[in-house]
Amino acid sequence: MGNMSDSLSKDQRAEMERQYNIYQDGVSEIIPAFEMKEKIAKSLLTGRPLKVKLGLDPSAPDVHLGHTVVLNKLKQFQENGHIIQLIIGDFTGKIGDPTGKSTARKQLTNEEVKHNAQTYYEQFSKVLDMEKVELFYNSAWLSKLRLEDTINLSASITVARLLERNDFSERLASGKPISLHEFFYPLMQGYDSVELESDVELGGTDQHFNVLMGRHLQEHYNKEKQVVIMLPLLEGLDGVEKMSKSKNNYIGVDEDPREMFGKIMSIPDELTLKYFNLITDLSHIEKNDIAMRLESGDLHPRDAKMLLGKVIVRMYHDEAAAQLAEEHFKTVFQRGAIPQDIPEVIWEGSHSIHVIDLLVQLGLQSSKSEARRMIQNGGIRINSEKVMDVDLLVHLPKELILQVGKRKFLKLLNPKAN
Amino acid sequence: MGNMSDSLSKDQRAEMERQYNIYQDGVSEIIPAFEMKEKIAKSLLTGRPLKVKLGLDPSAPDVHLGHTVVLNKLKQFQENGHIIQLIIGDFTGKIGDPTGKSTARKQLTNEEVKHNAQTYYEQFSKVLDMEKVELFYNSAWLSKLRLEDTINLSASITVARLLERNDFSERLASGKPISLHEFFYPLMQGYDSVELESDVELGGTDQHFNVLMGRHLQEHYNKEKQVVIMLPLLEGLDGVEKMSKSKNNYIGVDEDPREMFGKIMSIPDELTLKYFNLITDLSHIEKNDIAMRLESGDLHPRDAKMLLGKVIVRMYHDEAAAQLAEEHFKTVFQRGAIPQDIPEVIWEGSHSIHVIDLLVQLGLQSSKSEARRMIQNGGIRINSEKVMDVDLLVHLPKELILQVGKRKFLKLLNPKAN
Repeated sequence: MGNMSDSLSKDQRAEMERQYNIYQDGVSEIIPAFEMKEKIAKSLLTGRPLKVKLGLDPSAPDVHLGHTVVLNKLKQFQENGHIIQLIIGDFTGKIGDPTGKSTARKQLTNEEVKHNAQTYYEQFSKVLDMEKVELFYNSAWLSKLRLEDTINLSASITVARLLERNDFSERLASGKPISLHEFFYPLMQGYDSVELESDVELGGTDQHFNVLMGRHLQEHYNKEKQVVIMLPLLEGLDGVEKMSKSKNNYIGVDEDPREMFGKIMSIPDELTLKYFNLITDLSHIEKNDIAMRLESGDLHPRDAKMLLGKVIVRMYHDEAAAQLAEEHFKTVFQRGAIPQDIPEVIWEGSHSIHVIDLLVQLGLQSSKSEARRMIQNGGIRINSEKVMDVDLLVHLPKELILQVGKRKFLKLLNPKAN
Repeated sequence: MGNMSDSLSKDQRAEMERQYNIYQDGVSEIIPAFEMKEKIAKSLLTGRPLKVKLGLDPSAPDVHLGHTVVLNKLKQFQENGHIIQLIIGDFTGKIGDPTGKSTARKQLTNEEVKHNAQTYYEQFSKVLDMEKVELFYNSAWLSKLRLEDTINLSASITVARLLERNDFSERLASGKPISLHEFFYPLMQGYDSVELESDVELGGTDQHFNVLMGRHLQEHYNKEKQVVIMLPLLEGLDGVEKMSKSKNNYIGVDEDPREMFGKIMSIPDELTLKYFNLITDLSHIEKNDIAMRLESGDLHPRDAKMLLGKVIVRMYHDEAAAQLAEEHFKTVFQRGAIPQDIPEVIWEGSHSIHVIDLLVQLGLQSSKSEARRMIQNGGIRINSEKVMDVDLLVHLPKELILQVGKRKFLKLLNPKAN
């Protein structure tokens, strides 16, 4: 590539530094940082935008705030005129797992792939300008590779190098089988970068091995090597595990304002700043300001989290929704009161019913055993009184307020009551 | 497959046992022996011949007696009406080594592949009835495999299993790189058996891993599994290393009768019986007879080897050539005399020349350093006198006999000599 940055004018050099500072903010690692500057310099000199790649799993289209770490980074590139390449990894999705061992990786139909891609598209549009995004399906090139091409691809890498990937080395050491075809997944993902001539690839730190493969393969195919930006993983509501749907510790970008706000308020205080940094669109200055006020004690941790909740609800809904979500939260939790606008249900069953049956029949709990557990955990209230007896027989009056957990309310109307 | 042999008539059962006894004679291993009998039984019941596979490396078409171990086994199948499948592994030959690291595995052109196949064909015809042989090029199916097929193929095998192959495990342990594409060679060779639905595959014991792969892959693709016959490796002239062209310890099937006979006479006595067993067409009874007479002392080891030499020359030339080769050998080595019919060259150079230059100019040695080494080893004689001095200046008379090693003679005529 040569030293592009040496050819920049003074203004261009300032612009390069400005962009670089934005891109490096909050990331775990840029590999290598020097080349990131060179890429920006090349773009400034040639007028050609950078191609910034993100690979997507076609089987899991539920987008949550954990994903927005990388989406926000993509947005920064987009705001500076660069091209976003979103790649739906449909080739592997359509193959499924040939050993049939993994139920998690079942074979997707063409329709499912298209549907999931559409879901990504809609959810990503909450962060990115999708008009300016290029969408690819990697089956377009991978399905055409013949054995000769595959052998050429495999010749680029040693078995020892593949075994360096943590999960592979651990499985080999513990005698758990690694099927040979699994070695292809990082190679195929990397080959996408060869095909699309990506300049930059983003990924979570758990994707370290896979995204570096793109860089490696581009070199093997005599292409300019991509720069790799590793982004930190966002812990979920439990504050420990990576946010993920399967761990049920996530906040979906599609969730309603109150739910979103409430979930934000449930994260551990230590995570507040990390959430501000990684998943809000506040400026660097605003983020620093919050950090300093928190440290000095000017800002109470609870108030910082309320601010975080409002910012995030505003990002995925609007300012008014953010206000309402906050007020709702304050009403329910801070004043201990029952909110005004709770849903009502008209009861048409018998006047007396065991509390467990009542909860299940109203759909507030999915099974009797769940309802029993919820009562035992003190999670059920009738007219603000905690239910202590799992065998309680409830005599239904004309009106009764049921509360499940902290945030779910239902007003039960029984017009036929005496 | 069920137990085919249970359905055989008494005569068929006898025929099955007869064939089995021929096929198992002299082999290292049949995997599994039980299925070999079942295969024969199936063939007898259905009237369909067995398909007996041998894979060939397209880059090394020089056939020597080491190869005839497996060819003689194939011939036994052919004599019982079964079909021989010869597979030229041209697919890998055309790809070469994608890493470019191995000069041994350079890329072959279509013409070279065709030429080498033709050479195999001609040389194999000395043992097999080539009219009844089916010849395949594995590029016919391998070049059509797409990535999806390759992934399916790779899903059949674990990395741990591949690393069990001796050379792979040793290289991984010692930190020598194994390129991922090398894992494909056994898979491709095995896939040939899937495509051709082979019943039996033959291979030397050094091919153990590769030929078993065919059996493994047929099972993965729900085909009837082939039986694998492992044949012992034939030591070369040195009596230690496997016979091979690169070790220069081989006897080519194309060599002239005297050379062939002389080379046979140079093998260590301990190998004589193994050569009889593995590479001659004598019957089991004749072989046993020789073994017993050797053991009892009735047959002198030197005479046994002479007999071996005659049998082998007769196989690749004819009875008369075998007689002449034996007489030549007796004349030269047993009587220490110079044979009658040695080639003559008329000298037109200067009358005096250093012995080293003389050897090189006559083409008897390929370089001065080789010529020097040959003299130092006592391998050069002039008129039966050993040359002791590497700097000897030879004054050429009208006639002079040069001897190189034990078996190479040249009569040099210098008509202009005084």
